[in-house]
Amino acid sequence: MSMVSLLPILLLYLIYTTGEVVSDHRKIRIDDDVYCESWRFSVETNDAGYWSTIPARCVQFVQDYMTGDQYRYDSEVVAEDSVRFAKTVEISDSGSDGWVFDIDETLLSNLPYYQLYGFGSEPFDEESFDSWVDLAEAPALPASLSLYKELKQLGFKIFLLTGRSEYQRNVTEKNLLYAGFTNWERLILRGPSDQGKPAIIYKSEKRSDLQHEGYRIHGSSGDQWSDLLGFAVARRSFKLPNPMYYIS
Amino acid sequence: MSMVSLLPILLLYLIYTTGEVVSDHRKIRIDDDVYCESWRFSVETNDAGYWSTIPARCVQFVQDYMTGDQYRYDSEVVAEDSVRFAKTVEISDSGSDGWVFDIDETLLSNLPYYQLYGFGSEPFDEESFDSWVDLAEAPALPASLSLYKELKQLGFKIFLLTGRSEYQRNVTEKNLLYAGFTNWERLILRGPSDQGKPAIIYKSEKRSDLQHEGYRIHGSSGDQWSDLLGFAVARRSFKLPNPMYYIS
Repeated sequence: MSMVSLLPILLLYLIYTTGEVVSDHRKIRIDDDVYCESWRFSVETNDAGYWSTIPARCVQFVQDYMTGDQYRYDSEVVAEDSVRFAKTVEISDSGSDGWVFDIDETLLSNLPYYQLYGFGSEPFDEESFDSWVDLAEAPALPASLSLYKELKQLGFKIFLLTGRSEYQRNVTEKNLLYAGFTNWERLILRGPSDQGKPAIIYKSEKRSDLQHEGYRIHGSSGDQWSDLLGFAVARRSFKLPNPMYYIS
Repeated sequence: MSMVSLLPILLLYLIYTTGEVVSDHRKIRIDDDVYCESWRFSVETNDAGYWSTIPARCVQFVQDYMTGDQYRYDSEVVAEDSVRFAKTVEISDSGSDGWVFDIDETLLSNLPYYQLYGFGSEPFDEESFDSWVDLAEAPALPASLSLYKELKQLGFKIFLLTGRSEYQRNVTEKNLLYAGFTNWERLILRGPSDQGKPAIIYKSEKRSDLQHEGYRIHGSSGDQWSDLLGFAVARRSFKLPNPMYYIS
């Protein structure tokens, strides 16, 4: 076999072992870490828009991120940002100062579930996820639990606004209590008329309802942009990290 | 000197040489890279809110990011996200389909200036920055130049909306042409009545004016959240990276 006929095979071998690929857009050779970092920037800033599963070449990257120091510390810094803002809010005596929390990947971590399902590399499977939810064993995100307690102490009314459905109310309450969350003002789940609505509409409507009841929503915490954008948005929004899935 | 009396000095030495500090919030020992990554997450998602200079311990981190592959490739991925969306837009014959670009750190890069001023670690100095702007030598961000050309080819009207002032119109046009940008529809700068307004208000007002003129603003590209949020927002917003400064 001549060197010339070996060349394509050598090239493939080189691409395979170095993990380098050629971007279709500008032909920059990019290794997986740089690629996956950029992909993460794109999804966390909402530039990416809708996506269904994480890129195959980023499974190890997402696993390392989610199970390592960085994810925990990123969440920590978001909580610190939130507390810093919360302390600037003048709490009135009327009991109308509110803070809205999403639940999944915001107060509770479903990481034990996603570890079994490739960290978001597999299409979402509602059946197995609902079975996991039924266990009511999702742990708290430690940074969010601290933030939650601190906000309550400061005098905020806490509203939990989740994409979960009414039939999951009991297990959700059970899980929240198991994880250490107590004394929320209201737990809002999707009712029959909310089914099928995009999360961003459903959540905006519920925030709007709270505002019409007279609550001022100072802060909103969520891992999805659909928790934070839309209408009736909070004065300040706090985006928690989540490179595992996207909900529109 | 006994070991006991040496202990505080040894401890200080250890903290100093390993770069570890203890977070005041949850007492996690964090090295500079993890800290600066989290700080970058916090500023790029807008969780941090207002900040004036980058943290002293992140100067090397920001320098490495801005001058390395990651920043260029992050911008590349944002451009790819933008093109993917732009191609889904049905361009009408009316000539009313618009795209809004910010200029600084979006179309033009002021990195040569910030390299001389500690990558954002020094307070903003208007005088020296305006002198740099007067040189009209800021290079294009390569990914944005490609995007700009592709959007024009697709039929979008391009609006340039900058925080720069009217007196900088000539040097700004000269710089844009020097960097390869041509045939924009309109260059909008701060007039006398826009001075002193927060960027988010000024830019929202100008987008609103465009909408009242009948333009549909499909996309908006900017390195600051104040380029993208507020009112009269574009259908889709694209956040470019910028860990060097924050404009509210």
